[in-house]
Amino acid sequence: MTTRWLTPEEQRAWRAYVAGYLLLEDAIDRQLQQEAGMPHLYYSILANLSEAAEQRLRMTDLAEQLKITRSRLTYAVTRLEKDGLLRREECRWDKRGSIAVLTEEGMGALEGLAPGHVETVRAALFDRLTPEQVGQLEEIFTQVVLGFTGDGEEASPEGLPWRRRSSPCSGS
Amino acid sequence: MTTRWLTPEEQRAWRAYVAGYLLLEDAIDRQLQQEAGMPHLYYSILANLSEAAEQRLRMTDLAEQLKITRSRLTYAVTRLEKDGLLRREECRWDKRGSIAVLTEEGMGALEGLAPGHVETVRAALFDRLTPEQVGQLEEIFTQVVLGFTGDGEEASPEGLPWRRRSSPCSGS
Repeated sequence: MTTRWLTPEEQRAWRAYVAGYLLLEDAIDRQLQQEAGMPHLYYSILANLSEAAEQRLRMTDLAEQLKITRSRLTYAVTRLEKDGLLRREECRWDKRGSIAVLTEEGMGALEGLAPGHVETVRAALFDRLTPEQVGQLEEIFTQVVLGFTGDGEEASPEGLPWRRRSSPCSGS
Repeated sequence: MTTRWLTPEEQRAWRAYVAGYLLLEDAIDRQLQQEAGMPHLYYSILANLSEAAEQRLRMTDLAEQLKITRSRLTYAVTRLEKDGLLRREECRWDKRGSIAVLTEEGMGALEGLAPGHVETVRAALFDRLTPEQVGQLEEIFTQVVLGFTGDGEEASPEGLPWRRRSSPCSGS
């Protein structure tokens, strides 16, 4: 198969995107690390739980919401549980049905961190964009996500981190 | 200061972006890990060196191009040097001027990996976008990068990973 190399326009877009997301992720991670010794992922776990009914989610659903592997989620949840920010409840009749529940302490930590986190996201991203660009950003990345999840059946489970049985590398 | 929370439009855009970049980065990393046991960053180091004059770059310039901290770059370069894909040359009169040079083996590895990598980027991102969206993606993230680097003097060095003396967390 002939390689379909990127066009000059695609190359420019790709470089801008990679540079931008690395700087953005670095700024977000650094702010949360400085304020609470917590990487972005841990904050997202607490935030997703806080928005769920009764502040609880099955681990499999949480991994899907966060677009990460279950093994990576399990590692993070173990750390957050040790800090008392969430607790796990095992499901007696379904071993895979383990549930993560936000604790009051976790909700308190999240409420303390949210203003600084939002300010970082706003200063680094949204303050730089016009309302039209905010809409474009949503459309572009909604397209990307749909490319992975499909409109249902056609998605390849291997491309979905939360459906993968195990990871070929320890990083994920 | 009153927190400037995200508007509903910004929230939707933020969620789509975070989900999209996590899936994109996962797909790219997985393809490179499966093919060469190499994370995305290592590939980027080889690619940037391959495009430099004489396939060599000062470590400080390489860190700036990649938007990462020098300590993270040093770690990656040490691994790549062990595999023979690049070599380091110390600068006798400037300790900070250490230079990374792509080896023939490194160029060979890159040439072998490039088609699969580009195909992954294309399938996950560019095949999903219209030409207008490619232009929008470039503009949005160019704005984001400029927000960090400024048009020169106004940039805060703390926000630039490659200018930071040391990192508060081991992750970067």
